Amino acid sequence: MARVLTPRAEDFPRWYQDLIAKAQLADNGPVRGTMVIRPAGYAIWERMQAEMDNRIKAAGAENAYFPLFIPENYLKREAEHVEGFSPELAVVTHGGGKPLAEPIVVRPTSETVIGEFMAKWVDSYRDLPLLLNQWANVVRWELRPRIFLRTSEFLWQEGHTAHADEADARAYARRILHEVYEDMMVNVLGIPVVVGRKTARERFAGATSTYTLEGMMGDGKALQLGTSHELGQNFAKAFDITYSAATGGMEHAWTTSWGTSTRMLGGLIMTHGDDNGLRVPPRLAPIQAYVMVVKAGDGVAEAAAKLRDALRDAGVRVALDERVDTPFGRRAVDAELKGYPVRVEVGPRDLAAGNAVVVRRTDGSKTPVPVADTVGAVLAALDADQQALHDEALALRQSRTVEVATLAEALEAAATGWARVPWSAVGVEGEAEANGQGVTVRCLVRADGSVPDSEDEPDLIAILARSY
Amino acid sequence: MARVLTPRAEDFPRWYQDLIAKAQLADNGPVRGTMVIRPAGYAIWERMQAEMDNRIKAAGAENAYFPLFIPENYLKREAEHVEGFSPELAVVTHGGGKPLAEPIVVRPTSETVIGEFMAKWVDSYRDLPLLLNQWANVVRWELRPRIFLRTSEFLWQEGHTAHADEADARAYARRILHEVYEDMMVNVLGIPVVVGRKTARERFAGATSTYTLEGMMGDGKALQLGTSHELGQNFAKAFDITYSAATGGMEHAWTTSWGTSTRMLGGLIMTHGDDNGLRVPPRLAPIQAYVMVVKAGDGVAEAAAKLRDALRDAGVRVALDERVDTPFGRRAVDAELKGYPVRVEVGPRDLAAGNAVVVRRTDGSKTPVPVADTVGAVLAALDADQQALHDEALALRQSRTVEVATLAEALEAAATGWARVPWSAVGVEGEAEANGQGVTVRCLVRADGSVPDSEDEPDLIAILARSY
Repeated sequence: MARVLTPRAEDFPRWYQDLIAKAQLADNGPVRGTMVIRPAGYAIWERMQAEMDNRIKAAGAENAYFPLFIPENYLKREAEHVEGFSPELAVVTHGGGKPLAEPIVVRPTSETVIGEFMAKWVDSYRDLPLLLNQWANVVRWELRPRIFLRTSEFLWQEGHTAHADEADARAYARRILHEVYEDMMVNVLGIPVVVGRKTARERFAGATSTYTLEGMMGDGKALQLGTSHELGQNFAKAFDITYSAATGGMEHAWTTSWGTSTRMLGGLIMTHGDDNGLRVPPRLAPIQAYVMVVKAGDGVAEAAAKLRDALRDAGVRVALDERVDTPFGRRAVDAELKGYPVRVEVGPRDLAAGNAVVVRRTDGSKTPVPVADTVGAVLAALDADQQALHDEALALRQSRTVEVATLAEALEAAATGWARVPWSAVGVEGEAEANGQGVTVRCLVRADGSVPDSEDEPDLIAILARSY
Repeated sequence: MARVLTPRAEDFPRWYQDLIAKAQLADNGPVRGTMVIRPAGYAIWERMQAEMDNRIKAAGAENAYFPLFIPENYLKREAEHVEGFSPELAVVTHGGGKPLAEPIVVRPTSETVIGEFMAKWVDSYRDLPLLLNQWANVVRWELRPRIFLRTSEFLWQEGHTAHADEADARAYARRILHEVYEDMMVNVLGIPVVVGRKTARERFAGATSTYTLEGMMGDGKALQLGTSHELGQNFAKAFDITYSAATGGMEHAWTTSWGTSTRMLGGLIMTHGDDNGLRVPPRLAPIQAYVMVVKAGDGVAEAAAKLRDALRDAGVRVALDERVDTPFGRRAVDAELKGYPVRVEVGPRDLAAGNAVVVRRTDGSKTPVPVADTVGAVLAALDADQQALHDEALALRQSRTVEVATLAEALEAAATGWARVPWSAVGVEGEAEANGQGVTVRCLVRADGSVPDSEDEPDLIAILARSY
């Protein structure tokens, strides 16, 4: 088969760009750093949204929508927040044909404006917790943009909650981290993330704790796939989110925020993609089974349509490709690029023998199956390949993760994968030194893999890596 | 019952504002003209999105996402388009801490940027029709903002399609108009819209034909609820969207665009709201049945929970209110404000007689029903009230629409409702005169109610009204 993409081993970043272009997932937008998400890419994003939204609602949060435009002074009220975001802001200075009295920023995130409204809506402890989420676009000016990974505009969900006390806020930030995000990443995206705590240096601007989910990409680098933050009382104090406590007296609330974005599309590609294109885990895939008429022939189109209907009736997301005037090879290459989990090829020769051919994207296997057994074979393949993709990614992560004892060894290991090193052997100074060499502490975890409450706990493991 | 809202008859705009505030649907945002859509309002919008999205996909369009930021020069390429939108633009002049070389506009609509990409993606007649839709926020600077109706930022879907010839473009713009929009407005929102053609004066900037759906609000004014445009070859020429025809040779495509927005929420309120609050048609309602524990008592909470489960199992979208520490009256007033179609009240006294009470929001009726029959009674009420709300709105429109023969009579009738007048009695000059008095030609229709292909057809009826 002709080479369709630059092989990953030859040039991973180039392979990534090639795949996005040839699978028609996205294009660069006309304003530097922006992107156009094409239908094939957006369909995957819609499935991500649906799965994530279900989980967010199950965790009790309600969707709302806050404005794109934020008065510049809002950003300034929380000192670390403004410092963190100032270099990345897009500023609107003219509206309706006139200069504006006060500049407006395009939201880089919505803690400030949501804080303002939480202050209005919360009166008493009975109004807490207040659990909000929004699906929105945000803007952070990017000097080195890369589609899905770093774009000046991206799509995301951002959750914002207010609680009566620190324990409740912490429990909720952790609930989102594990029940919503980790479950989504592992069981839908098939990405075996490491869940941990960011160091102070890597924390979100204005947070007291930042939790993260880190995935290893196909080139051994790390990608942050989602974060959940405890904001302490920082934003509650900046925006005066107070409530009358059950015991009397006014208290400041404790807030959290948490987000995942179109960056997940980049993580999906770099975790599961191979040299033939994307591989989409079946549970996520907008099209799980792609029924192809190989070429015209007696009863072929009818048999393919019947299979499409039978698969749909069995609950499979299915599409039918009967474009027999386009060469089959080209359509098959395109189906591989787009990563449909299973192809069902229906052609005159196999059909004469009573068979369709089930082609699995994950391992490339092609199996002739009696037409009557095809639905069962597809369902079995979808089940098996969800697990297979996850396990393949886990095996890669394990093979490229090294346990080391010193910073020097960790920096060496980070050239090709991840290093696990005692945090006590790195520390704040070691972290700065690593940063100077393009390596970051992705997160801190406990020896048993659980998430620390503080970076000062004894015996923590730091995971060091290069990252996107 | 204490007066909750300013009565409609006393001050309709004030009633509208009161309702939005007290039903907690939305707030004004901090930047003038922007809005915050609160959970109760956003849940309705999500249901609108789901119903609309299903219909759009059934019409063959695929979702995609194009950038928020558009180079200023794009707007300038289509002369009427730039003229139409220039006064409403928000302009970004600074990004990443520096002045930008070229100003960027925040999209007021995406014809231009989508035109640019259609030109890249379309090569041959085989690539047509190209049917795209996006869900997005857009910005049009508003001097006289009103929540949901005119806001500087609003949420919408915008469809953009390219076709090989004018007939195909026209057929698709009309398909969206009737199969998607009219079906949605009439059968989901319960708004008996009039579907017609805009005059040249009222056409979208850059369109050759604009079709519209107009609803009559509770005060007799008109609201444009959606539009579908034929853009001819205007944008195809401005952005060079060409294709190689089956017959050989390069041709410019014919494009369409069509949109509906959060304005539908305003239309919903002003069509179905009454002096006690919102009334949401059952097919749209995020919560169709609201099961309320009236007060604590033996087995009451259990009976209410069982009813909730039984309703959910019957496919009803249901919520349970067991906040017995909040006075029942306050909760009932809130349920009326929010417009849940059916309340199921479960209290000790009725329960002792084996009953629950089914309260219908549409007509306010309260009917004790044996607990075992409650699900059936709720389903029957939901069915009946979907129709009842539509019919009530239709009766209002009919009672407030007058058939007249002259412009003078039409202007008089437009003080309290709609006038139907021969277009030949108005004409371009009469239209300008009407505009001077705050009255617009909402649309042109044929005598049989169908949609004209041109404003020059004989015997057209013009509908004149005041509008939002």
